[in-house]
Amino acid sequence: MQIAVLLYDRFTALDAIGPFDTLGRLDGAEVVFVSERPGPVRTDNGSLALVADKGLDEVTRPDIVIVPGAPHPEVQMENPAVTQWLRAVDATTTWTTSVCTGSMLLAAAGLLDGRRATSHWMFLDRLSAYGAAPTGERVVFDGKYVTAAGVSAGIDMGLTLLGRIAGDEYAQAVQLMTEYDPQPPYDAGSPAKAPAALVARLRATDPLR
Amino acid sequence: MQIAVLLYDRFTALDAIGPFDTLGRLDGAEVVFVSERPGPVRTDNGSLALVADKGLDEVTRPDIVIVPGAPHPEVQMENPAVTQWLRAVDATTTWTTSVCTGSMLLAAAGLLDGRRATSHWMFLDRLSAYGAAPTGERVVFDGKYVTAAGVSAGIDMGLTLLGRIAGDEYAQAVQLMTEYDPQPPYDAGSPAKAPAALVARLRATDPLR
Repeated sequence: MQIAVLLYDRFTALDAIGPFDTLGRLDGAEVVFVSERPGPVRTDNGSLALVADKGLDEVTRPDIVIVPGAPHPEVQMENPAVTQWLRAVDATTTWTTSVCTGSMLLAAAGLLDGRRATSHWMFLDRLSAYGAAPTGERVVFDGKYVTAAGVSAGIDMGLTLLGRIAGDEYAQAVQLMTEYDPQPPYDAGSPAKAPAALVARLRATDPLR
Repeated sequence: MQIAVLLYDRFTALDAIGPFDTLGRLDGAEVVFVSERPGPVRTDNGSLALVADKGLDEVTRPDIVIVPGAPHPEVQMENPAVTQWLRAVDATTTWTTSVCTGSMLLAAAGLLDGRRATSHWMFLDRLSAYGAAPTGERVVFDGKYVTAAGVSAGIDMGLTLLGRIAGDEYAQAVQLMTEYDPQPPYDAGSPAKAPAALVARLRATDPLR
């Protein structure tokens, strides 16, 4: 069982690490970080690099692919090396997954046509322009395609998919070992729950960019 | 404002990335990843490396230090280069923080003597052996020392500390942009909530190691 995590310049770290430290704990799985060119790949604010140990050409048949998002997904949506790789590996994956605007990359590769899917809340409208059927759910399954909402939703996706693959008890063990008993200090984690003025302000000016 | 994230061989990725993608979004903050030797640092299961851009000797006066945990904290607890650096930078930090067993490193450096603190649930007993007063809370403030429970608790700590520093509205904006509206598929994230048999089994055999 091989799990490939796609990295690309200016991705969001937590998008990748949420599934990595949950689903990636699958017993016997080999997790490989892959990018167009092997080596350090910078995250969205530039202050951290994760190392991609393999190039795209070295990872051709992963069982699971995980695509993180970025504040500017359009860069990779227009990168044929990435979209072609996604289409190629998707032909043989068991699960094709994304976190946050990673679903925009899947959609640009033509993999979400007519499928229920989600993305970062700011991108749900744009997702439909690529033929997907956006939902406001946090983790969306449509066949083998699993998409998660923004950034931190990758943890919920990782545990949910881990449960499907390895069983509830195994996933609960990973939840307990990662002490995932969330206690956010505020209740502002979705546009439905956050103050309306804040949602409006963020739609206009995005602090992550 | 400089935020230093300590990396060391076999740390847990999410411990570092949770605070990084919340507290690290502090406006105007420079985040620097630092380790004994600059370069790639492998996470606990070996399948990922994060890059430390700076060595310990290059980061001498961070305003905030973040210490992630590891399944085997004892290795760094006995590493004088790390414990001496922690003591040295702590002399001038505004906030000294940890996630998971990162608090064991702070304790080994003598920084938690008589202080309320937390750690991964499996390590609370051991924390008291170093003079700290363990609590079962998820995020613990004692003066400028902020410790978080296991792995994912670093997200809650990051948002909570961000609110203290930058105000509630700013922290809520980061919560919304990271869509931190957790919906775990199970309710097994703490030893009090998980099935007792699972807790007992994990105490005996730890899947993260």
